Amino acid sequence: MSHGDVDPEVEMTSPHWMHRDAGSRPRTHTFWRLERWRSSMLLLVGVALCDLAPGCSATDTDIALDAKATLNHRIQSLDLLVFVFLLALTVLTIWLFKHHRVSWLHETGLAVIYGLIVGAIIRYAGTSATLVHMQVEPQGVPTYSDKLPPDTLWFRYPVNQTNGTKQPELVHTYAYVFRGQVHDVDENEIDLKATFDPEVFFNIILPPIIFYAGYSLKKKYFFRNLGAILTFAIVGTTLSAFLIGGFMYGCVKLMPKYLSSSFTFLDSLYFGALISPTDPLTILAIFNDLRVDVNLYALVLGESVLNDAVAIVLSGAIQNYGEHYSSTGEFETTAFLRSLSDFFSIFLLSLMIGAAMGCLTALMTKFTRVRDFPLLESALFVLMSYSTFLLAEATELTGVVAVLFCGICQAHYTYNNLSEDSRQRTKQIFELLNFLAENFIFSYIGVSMFTFPKHHFDAGFIITAFICAAIGRAVNVYPLSWLLNIKRKPKISSNFQHMLFFAGLRGAMSFALAIRNTVSDERQTMLTATSLIVIFTVVIQGGAANFLLNWLKIPVGVDDETEQLNNYQVHSDVEGGGVNRGKMRLSGGTDSNLDTPVDGPNGSLGGASGGRRRNSHEKAILARIWGNFDTKYMKPLLTHSRPTLLETLPVCCNPIARLLTTTQQLTQDGSEFRRVDSDSDICIDNDTGNGLSQDATGAGPGTGTVGVGVGRRNSLSRVGGDHRNAYI
Amino acid sequence: MSHGDVDPEVEMTSPHWMHRDAGSRPRTHTFWRLERWRSSMLLLVGVALCDLAPGCSATDTDIALDAKATLNHRIQSLDLLVFVFLLALTVLTIWLFKHHRVSWLHETGLAVIYGLIVGAIIRYAGTSATLVHMQVEPQGVPTYSDKLPPDTLWFRYPVNQTNGTKQPELVHTYAYVFRGQVHDVDENEIDLKATFDPEVFFNIILPPIIFYAGYSLKKKYFFRNLGAILTFAIVGTTLSAFLIGGFMYGCVKLMPKYLSSSFTFLDSLYFGALISPTDPLTILAIFNDLRVDVNLYALVLGESVLNDAVAIVLSGAIQNYGEHYSSTGEFETTAFLRSLSDFFSIFLLSLMIGAAMGCLTALMTKFTRVRDFPLLESALFVLMSYSTFLLAEATELTGVVAVLFCGICQAHYTYNNLSEDSRQRTKQIFELLNFLAENFIFSYIGVSMFTFPKHHFDAGFIITAFICAAIGRAVNVYPLSWLLNIKRKPKISSNFQHMLFFAGLRGAMSFALAIRNTVSDERQTMLTATSLIVIFTVVIQGGAANFLLNWLKIPVGVDDETEQLNNYQVHSDVEGGGVNRGKMRLSGGTDSNLDTPVDGPNGSLGGASGGRRRNSHEKAILARIWGNFDTKYMKPLLTHSRPTLLETLPVCCNPIARLLTTTQQLTQDGSEFRRVDSDSDICIDNDTGNGLSQDATGAGPGTGTVGVGVGRRNSLSRVGGDHRNAYI
Repeated sequence: MSHGDVDPEVEMTSPHWMHRDAGSRPRTHTFWRLERWRSSMLLLVGVALCDLAPGCSATDTDIALDAKATLNHRIQSLDLLVFVFLLALTVLTIWLFKHHRVSWLHETGLAVIYGLIVGAIIRYAGTSATLVHMQVEPQGVPTYSDKLPPDTLWFRYPVNQTNGTKQPELVHTYAYVFRGQVHDVDENEIDLKATFDPEVFFNIILPPIIFYAGYSLKKKYFFRNLGAILTFAIVGTTLSAFLIGGFMYGCVKLMPKYLSSSFTFLDSLYFGALISPTDPLTILAIFNDLRVDVNLYALVLGESVLNDAVAIVLSGAIQNYGEHYSSTGEFETTAFLRSLSDFFSIFLLSLMIGAAMGCLTALMTKFTRVRDFPLLESALFVLMSYSTFLLAEATELTGVVAVLFCGICQAHYTYNNLSEDSRQRTKQIFELLNFLAENFIFSYIGVSMFTFPKHHFDAGFIITAFICAAIGRAVNVYPLSWLLNIKRKPKISSNFQHMLFFAGLRGAMSFALAIRNTVSDERQTMLTATSLIVIFTVVIQGGAANFLLNWLKIPVGVDDETEQLNNYQVHSDVEGGGVNRGKMRLSGGTDSNLDTPVDGPNGSLGGASGGRRRNSHEKAILARIWGNFDTKYMKPLLTHSRPTLLETLPVCCNPIARLLTTTQQLTQDGSEFRRVDSDSDICIDNDTGNGLSQDATGAGPGTGTVGVGVGRRNSLSRVGGDHRNAYI
Repeated sequence: MSHGDVDPEVEMTSPHWMHRDAGSRPRTHTFWRLERWRSSMLLLVGVALCDLAPGCSATDTDIALDAKATLNHRIQSLDLLVFVFLLALTVLTIWLFKHHRVSWLHETGLAVIYGLIVGAIIRYAGTSATLVHMQVEPQGVPTYSDKLPPDTLWFRYPVNQTNGTKQPELVHTYAYVFRGQVHDVDENEIDLKATFDPEVFFNIILPPIIFYAGYSLKKKYFFRNLGAILTFAIVGTTLSAFLIGGFMYGCVKLMPKYLSSSFTFLDSLYFGALISPTDPLTILAIFNDLRVDVNLYALVLGESVLNDAVAIVLSGAIQNYGEHYSSTGEFETTAFLRSLSDFFSIFLLSLMIGAAMGCLTALMTKFTRVRDFPLLESALFVLMSYSTFLLAEATELTGVVAVLFCGICQAHYTYNNLSEDSRQRTKQIFELLNFLAENFIFSYIGVSMFTFPKHHFDAGFIITAFICAAIGRAVNVYPLSWLLNIKRKPKISSNFQHMLFFAGLRGAMSFALAIRNTVSDERQTMLTATSLIVIFTVVIQGGAANFLLNWLKIPVGVDDETEQLNNYQVHSDVEGGGVNRGKMRLSGGTDSNLDTPVDGPNGSLGGASGGRRRNSHEKAILARIWGNFDTKYMKPLLTHSRPTLLETLPVCCNPIARLLTTTQQLTQDGSEFRRVDSDSDICIDNDTGNGLSQDATGAGPGTGTVGVGVGRRNSLSRVGGDHRNAYI
């Protein structure tokens, strides 16, 4: 079984089960000893048998292929198992930390740290076993001119050459699919040890996280601060991206390294776009601890959610700029303008697709009686929501943006049509999915630092990236806060600004964008820098946030109600108008001050704007127009709410209006209507954390539809309140 | 941009965006017109720009690679979108059918039919665009001797040869990973149009289905009929597999075709094993309609669940036989015996791993207070359950078997420790996952008939397979029923036997086993036959089942209670002892006749065996011993139930017993204890359908822990009862 005289152009690494020459390569297909031993034995037996039996060539190869397929399956299972165990361990440790009230380590930080440990173990403890690879080269080299390598190679492989005969009587053709570029042929091997295809993040991990953010967004406060949120999210993120990009470009060009030649301005911009978005998870947790002004809270929450959406569209626009308009990476004004229009059109179209799919689901659940079968209803809800993401991705739009606005629409319209069972089920499912997905991605960030083969460490770049990321965050926070402070009544104090700056952790979206494309050295350098920034910010900043809160003397544990009351007493003397929330409404009994016929067309959003009516007309106008339209046309069309379209549409449209109005809408009396709607408001108005922990409580014995709003924000019972800022 | 003089050994198909020669190949990478048009434009622009700019070679290739990655992502999204839309459509149609009480088409049949339609559209409506592939061949052909093709090819591809210079100044190395064998080089292209890696089925689709079967299995009746179920499942399935295998082998050898030479006895046996298991889903639905003897119901349900487990282990053993012991495919007695021991050891070890992981979860939930945080608890539950599957797969055992028994243990022990919130959440989540997974797999069976590239139609084989599958089912049903009738008091009537035979639909497991390995022609032929059998049985037999029920004059709609009472009056004069179930217990008030101190060590399983005490001692002994042990040691160890280990263990073990007994166990009074346990019994005793729809009801307003048992089997309300036989 010798290798014979290997042709220099077809060099084949010895398979590890024949010659134990493994372990020399630093980054090879590492797996566990037992695993390797078993496979070695299995394949040795196979090979030995084959040498004994003379006529078994074809069957034998098939069997060996079978064995290999089995082996691959087991390796995949092991890889997944590592992560599942990691998550289970994280869950148990989180519980322990919560149980003992440990506050200096956030659970995402925990997931990252466990990931790092396990990644290091996988990399250094296991002996490595090389993948068998063969170098092939087209013979007549300079004869074809395609820029792209072929999608598949068909490799004619002569089997059964054991007896040394020269004629290739059994030549099998095997297909090989394109994987990626090998940059360092000596060292860098494309292996898949405990790594996943980056597409996994975009098709499986991100959608539930983003959808959940939308589905549980505190809508009233979100819309009320729409202008400020959009300023922060779009202007701030774009500003930050361009500033970081510019700084990075300048710094890299100053470095006397190979990077300065290959690193284009577009690359820097791309890096700026991917490092700009902040992680909603941690910000939310910190601000929940902080109990800041509810408007500020909603503002930062909304910003960090929209952040992700803006960043992903922005990075896509930058990539498109590179692909469509510029071939040199230098600046072109017209191309830039076209990219800018790309950016807005993609963002808006994605938004529209998301909203449209949400409304379609609302229509489906309104006009069918699928709510009679809660399982079917829940399935439909989940399928429609996921298809929104896929539809946007398939039409070259941005799924994350679409799914975010789909989630908002689902919460605003569809939720009202769902059966009680489906409401609970969908929220609980997405809460769990969100939790698992988030912890998975943070574990993976840790593990991949050691196992992902396409890291490229460059100390200068990494240090520069850290500095630039901090500068970018500062540019996002301080000048915009100053701008906002011009008009805001309760100003954002400098301590709050410092806290905002400090809370700019980077998270899942940055990492997912960085790992999506690692074909070139520059991209790999970016991935490494991004991973390190995410790890540092999540572990160190996330952990230190509590200490900083004390140090900055930011009032912690301010009672929510008091804070809120103070806030509105300072703000303006509000009466009714939809601004009192939480326990205030509960203590107020059944005053469903939104959407009631008394309030007329001043709907839930209209009510929101109504609260600010006297103070900031200029901001409220958009929200008020929308709220009016929503209550008059959208809600009657998409939900069972009243007034019906028969009342709001002009008389000439009556036949259509009749068609679009359900019997339920017509026959329900006021109380029924009020009950349904106040219930929906509890879902909608609620802040993210309690929207779900409350439902956990609501699912318990004795509480039902109406009583669902009991354990709210200030209930510090373990189940309902104490852990809310933890896994949201 | 001419191809130049292509070397005969490196033939490259023109990429479709340069020369519109696409559409000639029958099975190529088909996707939508718009899709193709957009990508063509995009790449044309890229290529055109590249020719204009002289110094853009490397960046340009990178950008083109980016574009390609984007395109791939969009194609994947489209593929997924097709299935998600299909599922949504199926859900809506199911609702419509249920709403109008259509009974002649089962919803899995619906999913298959929609799948077929969409598959045909994808295949025939879209114009095809070829993948770019290149044939490579090692130069010095007969120099190495490995049986297996290499895992990866490293392909040195010279880019930037536009200007005709001969020196390869920019040679990139690209990695290609092994995909599979190309059998017909002219026609068969390895493409991935709307197809998924078969591993998806085993890692993602099957686990929730099987786990849910275990988690919601009617345990008491399952254990009471353990002997008969095991006979049916293990003896019946093995018998059926070997008979089908033998018949198939004989028939194929008689065919004057190429198959007769390459089709080994092992192949036939493998086919027998994969076509033997029946689908629990449809059987359950039919028998729920039928309302047969509860024991028979449990027996067939248990059989069809274990069926799958047996079949997957059996097929694994057959494959191992081929790999380890025999290289010719002929029969060897010693090898056969070793495979037999393999079969039993893998089955038992998998069972033990599953049970151990279930017990571990029970311990975790008992000894930590993680139930204070329901989200963490649910996450832990899901993670532990999935890790059971992965652990078994990674240790070369069978994940499906492990996860089945893990589900049973989770329901029996862990469920009692969970918080109310987690109980609902886990059941609802797995119910939904099960529903989606099942419908996905049936849709995929339909779609893949047209799009999966590795089908191999052979009319003779298919017809033979249909006949053999029928014979195999007959051999499973009639002789074993006859054998069972010797001892059974309420005999299985011949009409029931016919119905049993007719209800032998094939489903997800058969398909998943068939598609798992399609490297050879024989395996591809099997896949085609299996797909057709599944489609036929699900659509035709599933649809005709209701008519056959009438035709066979099998009493339909017999009231559950009456049936049950009659049954037990015929059976023996039972008093108490855990045999009354459903409404009987509810009407009996709070008689928690299981596990109460009055009953002593006669636990839920002990009670079950107690019911048969007088009638069938020989069968009950095993169950009784187990029930005794369970109540005395397992339940006190793993749950908060009483008697505690302090009472059941000998005095010398008191320190350990104290350690393993929680304060909650010691301090709870009888009523608290009874409540918890009767509640767990409601979950456990319940039949699959109502176990969940009831909880749907229970989640509504006003009902809680205690009231959860309202809407049981006979409640024909829409939400609670009417749809139970539909999506279980």
